[in-house]
Amino acid sequence: MISNQLPHIVVIGGGFAGLWATRALAASPVRITLVDRCNHHLFQPLLYQVATAGLSSPDIAAPLRHILRKQSNVEVRLAEVGDIDATAKRISLDDGSHLDFDYLLLASGATHAYFGHDEWARHAPGLKTLDDALQLRRHLLLAFERAEAEPDPVKRAAWLNFAIVGGGPTGVELAGTLAEIARHTLVNEFRNINPSDARVRLIEAGPRVLASFPEDLSEKARRQLEKLGVEVSTGAAVTDIDDSGYRLGDEFIAARTVVWAAGVAASPLAKSLGVPLDRAGRVLVQADLSVPGYPRIFVAGDLASVQQDGKPVPGVAPAAKQMGRHVANAIRARLDNRSAPTFRYKDYGNLATIGRMAAIVHFGKLKLSGLLAWWFWLAAHVFFLIGFRNRLVVLLNWAWAYWSYQRGARIILGSDADNQQRSTRQE
Amino acid sequence: MISNQLPHIVVIGGGFAGLWATRALAASPVRITLVDRCNHHLFQPLLYQVATAGLSSPDIAAPLRHILRKQSNVEVRLAEVGDIDATAKRISLDDGSHLDFDYLLLASGATHAYFGHDEWARHAPGLKTLDDALQLRRHLLLAFERAEAEPDPVKRAAWLNFAIVGGGPTGVELAGTLAEIARHTLVNEFRNINPSDARVRLIEAGPRVLASFPEDLSEKARRQLEKLGVEVSTGAAVTDIDDSGYRLGDEFIAARTVVWAAGVAASPLAKSLGVPLDRAGRVLVQADLSVPGYPRIFVAGDLASVQQDGKPVPGVAPAAKQMGRHVANAIRARLDNRSAPTFRYKDYGNLATIGRMAAIVHFGKLKLSGLLAWWFWLAAHVFFLIGFRNRLVVLLNWAWAYWSYQRGARIILGSDADNQQRSTRQE
Repeated sequence: MISNQLPHIVVIGGGFAGLWATRALAASPVRITLVDRCNHHLFQPLLYQVATAGLSSPDIAAPLRHILRKQSNVEVRLAEVGDIDATAKRISLDDGSHLDFDYLLLASGATHAYFGHDEWARHAPGLKTLDDALQLRRHLLLAFERAEAEPDPVKRAAWLNFAIVGGGPTGVELAGTLAEIARHTLVNEFRNINPSDARVRLIEAGPRVLASFPEDLSEKARRQLEKLGVEVSTGAAVTDIDDSGYRLGDEFIAARTVVWAAGVAASPLAKSLGVPLDRAGRVLVQADLSVPGYPRIFVAGDLASVQQDGKPVPGVAPAAKQMGRHVANAIRARLDNRSAPTFRYKDYGNLATIGRMAAIVHFGKLKLSGLLAWWFWLAAHVFFLIGFRNRLVVLLNWAWAYWSYQRGARIILGSDADNQQRSTRQE
Repeated sequence: MISNQLPHIVVIGGGFAGLWATRALAASPVRITLVDRCNHHLFQPLLYQVATAGLSSPDIAAPLRHILRKQSNVEVRLAEVGDIDATAKRISLDDGSHLDFDYLLLASGATHAYFGHDEWARHAPGLKTLDDALQLRRHLLLAFERAEAEPDPVKRAAWLNFAIVGGGPTGVELAGTLAEIARHTLVNEFRNINPSDARVRLIEAGPRVLASFPEDLSEKARRQLEKLGVEVSTGAAVTDIDDSGYRLGDEFIAARTVVWAAGVAASPLAKSLGVPLDRAGRVLVQADLSVPGYPRIFVAGDLASVQQDGKPVPGVAPAAKQMGRHVANAIRARLDNRSAPTFRYKDYGNLATIGRMAAIVHFGKLKLSGLLAWWFWLAAHVFFLIGFRNRLVVLLNWAWAYWSYQRGARIILGSDADNQQRSTRQE
């Protein structure tokens, strides 16, 4: 048991920000409760690989309890946070209990945003959690199955029509990988359709894909996507999505699969703080990442809105880790009655993968694209994966996928019967 | 496209029997349609490893299309079979279409049986499919989480009380592995409970566990289970199961997790043939595995009731593979107007694993138990796994689990939100 005399720090969210803050407080005289609604830390940058059947869920996730088992000042709590009372310094949990805190780090991340069209969510699922990824995998694999069984050529074409909305990293990764699956992985497996007849379209409302990169790298990314077989539509906004397809401007396109990789909205927990939020619902934090008016409450990761040198700090893993470590420092400073330092995001560079042997890299003056960039991306991502076992398994899976074009996790899970089974008492 | 002039063979079920029959017909002048409601062949002997978080789903499953991609006389169809009309030689599918056959192999396997207590299914889930395994994994991992959050010691004990009903191979594997998880894997991860306080009880109504083995090996298995920390109750029948626990004879035991590994019932499709079935619903086949009165309809695998030398042929993978290959031979004989041979099951031996470094092996006069048996079991199971990649990944996972006591797949999937997401249009 952890002594109750020590200051109690509650961390909401076991993502990069929450986990890095927790670890950075390992040697401090505090007791920490890390609350997450999932039992695992997720390596989100590889989530698209689970959705496209290249990796299994456990390859990119590790139980939070396991990661933190040797850090004796932490208790991990699997629960959903209902509400935050910033003045009373208390959070309520979905199991009816509550936690009182001396310091709070809110790092519950972001979810999908449909820009006021929440009805699109049913037709165009997004990709934020492992459950999203498995659902999307099922969706994508079943589309080819439905096409194979469909005698009507018009309906069949709609099953083979894939649209990905949003030209950021997730949209680009999904589009590139899906094109590879259709053109290479599924070859010879169907008898009534040719999977490479599938049409994969990436739709971006802005003028270019991967807009956080310099223009020349964006253009290279576009060319690499097209080489993989992806149709790239920039400057084109989706105006409607329903069961049968989507509307691009005035044109209606019949498609049974639309994936949403566009909008990001902050976790709704931000609202319960009762402080000013930006347009996406993120908390406008102070220079030390604390919340205006509540010096003992901090926000980090995708949920924090931070401006630096006139630009927003991007919602990427390195920024979340840096913010997490900063909050740990700020809490230590408060405990010692020192003033907390100002947060500075250090941008080490930016990299994005596009598909098989295709990526772009931008590190200071270094710009790479193509095969070399892809190797760079691969090394960086495997290196940063948490847990020795995961890295080895992921490398092995990728080596196999690379040589064989095969994807090991092409297993459709879930069924109608599954919904029934889910009504067990432990739900 | 496959020529429509060739005799059409429909195979229902892509398990060991159906898949081995299909492969054995690769060089024959026939066209084959393999129908399964799952997109994958499942290596069922390792399913308990997915349920206990040692392996991922794709490690023990491979897409049927992929396995059969080079066999050009096969079409794989993902569909549920609604009904079989034996006289009209037609099967109906859930998508409203139908298939006419010249020859049929029904190999749709078995499901759980609750011996007339179907209401127990809600409280005591079984283990037959990958979805079952993931549901059970969620169930088991959540029980420890609930115990950790439960302040009342009586309620906490009920969360840490695990009962497995049925002392066959599945029950023994689950009990042994669960004891290992509680005693070793979860060590140091919780702050309010000691996972090794968990009580794992294996309940068998008959006089001994693993009753298909000789008595001395059964006794050795029991001792190995007890050494791993499992409480073994033989000659004890469960008389009731509900939300709060189970009843053993007259005694009520509070337990929040009861797993069903006892009864097996044949797939309900057997009924639609309209021929005599045994007590478990299996088809009483002829000596050549055809159905009485329908020489062009065969049954193989767990669905076939076959007596040999006064004993039933067991429902194990080697028997299913042998039956599948036999049916392929019988169909070829019919096509050549030869008489079909009589099926003979060749019993190469029997092996069962119990837990970490514990197993029993019975091959003719060879009887092994303990570490040596476990290595034997490991080698055999990895060797028989389908697909090069799977074998390597499984070996790697096991090597890791062996040295570290860790289980890589301890990821809780599914949530309340998940049920919502499942209502997408592709269900």
